[in-house]
Amino acid sequence: MRITTVGLDADDTLWHNESIFRLTQDRFRALMAEVAEPAALDAKLAEVERRNLALYGYGVKGFTLSMIETAMELTGNAAPSRIIADILAAGREMLSHPVEPLPGVEAALAELADDYRLVLITKGDLLHQEQKLAASGLGERFVAVEIVSEKDATTYARVFARHGTGAAQAAMAGNSLRSDVIPALEAGAYAAHLPYAMTWAHELAEPPVGHPRFAELASIRELPGWVRGLS
Amino acid sequence: MRITTVGLDADDTLWHNESIFRLTQDRFRALMAEVAEPAALDAKLAEVERRNLALYGYGVKGFTLSMIETAMELTGNAAPSRIIADILAAGREMLSHPVEPLPGVEAALAELADDYRLVLITKGDLLHQEQKLAASGLGERFVAVEIVSEKDATTYARVFARHGTGAAQAAMAGNSLRSDVIPALEAGAYAAHLPYAMTWAHELAEPPVGHPRFAELASIRELPGWVRGLS
Repeated sequence: MRITTVGLDADDTLWHNESIFRLTQDRFRALMAEVAEPAALDAKLAEVERRNLALYGYGVKGFTLSMIETAMELTGNAAPSRIIADILAAGREMLSHPVEPLPGVEAALAELADDYRLVLITKGDLLHQEQKLAASGLGERFVAVEIVSEKDATTYARVFARHGTGAAQAAMAGNSLRSDVIPALEAGAYAAHLPYAMTWAHELAEPPVGHPRFAELASIRELPGWVRGLS
Repeated sequence: MRITTVGLDADDTLWHNESIFRLTQDRFRALMAEVAEPAALDAKLAEVERRNLALYGYGVKGFTLSMIETAMELTGNAAPSRIIADILAAGREMLSHPVEPLPGVEAALAELADDYRLVLITKGDLLHQEQKLAASGLGERFVAVEIVSEKDATTYARVFARHGTGAAQAAMAGNSLRSDVIPALEAGAYAAHLPYAMTWAHELAEPPVGHPRFAELASIRELPGWVRGLS
């Protein structure tokens, strides 16, 4: 079976993302230090984010709104205004944060792009993801960019049919077992897990150990060799 | 020249949108009545929105953040927290607002779908636009949905190449001269303006009167006849 198409996740696969959320959350903890213990703050923020996910989706703007809402809830609707102003500033800084490819990404994409169609498949804010791709300098490597609201098996089947030769001749790679690996396998594609140092609780899942089309790679540097081995 | 593909805008073309923003802005004026005159509030909000557009893009979440930022700026970072809580609630209500097709939309799409490929082409929040399309019940009429961060000539050329037979054999229809009509004409497509009762200041533009591929229609009810007349 020849592989024609390689799908790549973006956040925490090509560039840092979760670490920027974590740094902002640290800042939020400091801002709220007089109001809430760090653990209580984290728990409330996670609850608000979960509640808002269906309405806000993924991305910085929804996260910013959820931080404001958390501040309001923990203060009985009496959050000091400088906290609100600081949360707004933190959100804007996240949106304008510089984007640098993770180590090994540029070389791996250059090598893969010689032999395969590369498709970027990512969740999140449409505009922000486009901005990050432009800022990363990696845009030229991809024949297509699909920014989607949810990554399920149907999504992968549709994207690999549209931009490749179907899921059976495609391999997906990303840091999230839940979003990048398991649904891509379900769609009939190959899938490689590229672990990132930290994973958002919402994205955690059991690795599909023993699945014949699954691989756990130590780094994106191993991706070109693994894909070549499938052909 | 035979037309194969018809592109349709979504907000204020298929369903109400600007009127919901205006109602929310009325509510914001009432909330801020003790802080700012309506005219001063409107001017400040417009300024904040314009400043944030490149960072936030289009959509309810960015609008909600801009309202909060406006409240902070007009109060010297001392907005009463119940105002912040009310703005958050208003944003959530906008996101969960029921979606009803505008008069004549269902019949026009049904008629067009018999003879042409219909493509929805819209700006805004990815997730929210998908949710609105699902809620509208109109999703089945479209062979493709393209949610884009900006509508320029390149966008229309790409979308009509991907989902149709190129811009020269496509017609675009929407309420915004600036986003739906002028760039579609630039891309080589036909374009019809379907005026909505109100237009966001950012979307205003001069009508391309006399352009050979442009039409001003009184309602979407006239769209099927106009498209048929091009073939």
